[in-house]
Amino acid sequence: MKNSLGAKTIVSTTPVWVVGTYDQEGKPNVMTAAWGGVCCSQPPCIYVSLRKATCTYGNIVERKAFTVSIPSETYAKEADYFGITSGKTVDKFSVTGLTPVKSDLVDAPYVKEFPVVIECKVIKTVEIGLHTEFIGEIMDVKADSLVLNKKNLLDIEKAKPIIWNPSEMTYNKVGKPIGQAFSIGKEISKQAHPKKLG
Amino acid sequence: MKNSLGAKTIVSTTPVWVVGTYDQEGKPNVMTAAWGGVCCSQPPCIYVSLRKATCTYGNIVERKAFTVSIPSETYAKEADYFGITSGKTVDKFSVTGLTPVKSDLVDAPYVKEFPVVIECKVIKTVEIGLHTEFIGEIMDVKADSLVLNKKNLLDIEKAKPIIWNPSEMTYNKVGKPIGQAFSIGKEISKQAHPKKLG
Repeated sequence: MKNSLGAKTIVSTTPVWVVGTYDQEGKPNVMTAAWGGVCCSQPPCIYVSLRKATCTYGNIVERKAFTVSIPSETYAKEADYFGITSGKTVDKFSVTGLTPVKSDLVDAPYVKEFPVVIECKVIKTVEIGLHTEFIGEIMDVKADSLVLNKKNLLDIEKAKPIIWNPSEMTYNKVGKPIGQAFSIGKEISKQAHPKKLG
Repeated sequence: MKNSLGAKTIVSTTPVWVVGTYDQEGKPNVMTAAWGGVCCSQPPCIYVSLRKATCTYGNIVERKAFTVSIPSETYAKEADYFGITSGKTVDKFSVTGLTPVKSDLVDAPYVKEFPVVIECKVIKTVEIGLHTEFIGEIMDVKADSLVLNKKNLLDIEKAKPIIWNPSEMTYNKVGKPIGQAFSIGKEISKQAHPKKLG
């Protein structure tokens, strides 16, 4: 018997993504979004869902582009600050001392000090309710050398991204790996279908 | 100077969500999706993005409903199995011994043994490319008593959800909290605007 918690956005975890955009005058802005994720493999796409009241909403409508900069644990305070203040009243880059870098590929800036960035062109806009979903095709993912492993893949234990827990409203670390995907489930397949897979 | 990793879905982390649906004959099915997240606060909505080739795609088109059951670490193998096999060839509930429960609120089953479930009615379908995004309005979130804290909120350290790391293709634990959201960034605000906020 399960307990009802109500019709709320209580999910396991969400990412902590810092969305970078330019306004009409070319001023860089960033805001933190927890409503984001991957929504297609081909073309590779991510989305961010934003309220119309945010600067970032207007900037994306105007420029049709955004970046996502992924903060490491070290920058949890800055990520939180980017979420609780508005670009309408403060220059968030100037206050935090972080550096906007113009993307070569899309009309948006990213945060130099964050180890991983995703550069996107908007291909679809979906009106849902309080939030509008911007679907962006990934033009490139870029990462600092320090967070890559020997195979030149992103090493999550080096990048140290943070996740958000919407129930208790905490930022959390990413924990240890517990198994390889597309692999640990084969044990069940073998037990169930020994002839077929064994 | 950042290194290009290419136009790939290399993001920080994604959820590991088990999507429950009924087929035309009422047979329950589950599949694991990593392309999912929250996309609106009001109405509260989540999405899952699925390939047309999956049973779950057809089931959602037919029934306009799905659930998301969130596996705890204990069920990582089952979650992986649900992702690497197709409901077209096996009865995934029967093979794993897990129990489908019919939702009272939506036309879809959830996994009894998983501690948290989200029940959704589809309100929008977005064609993107290889994946189709199903946006579901959350009708309720339900959780076992064992994973709630004293305030009756979902306690993530008890629920022990897993996350997916698309770069190294591992399932990972959720790590320790490192700060309270909408709070730790205020320190920066106070330094930047001592009179306004101090």
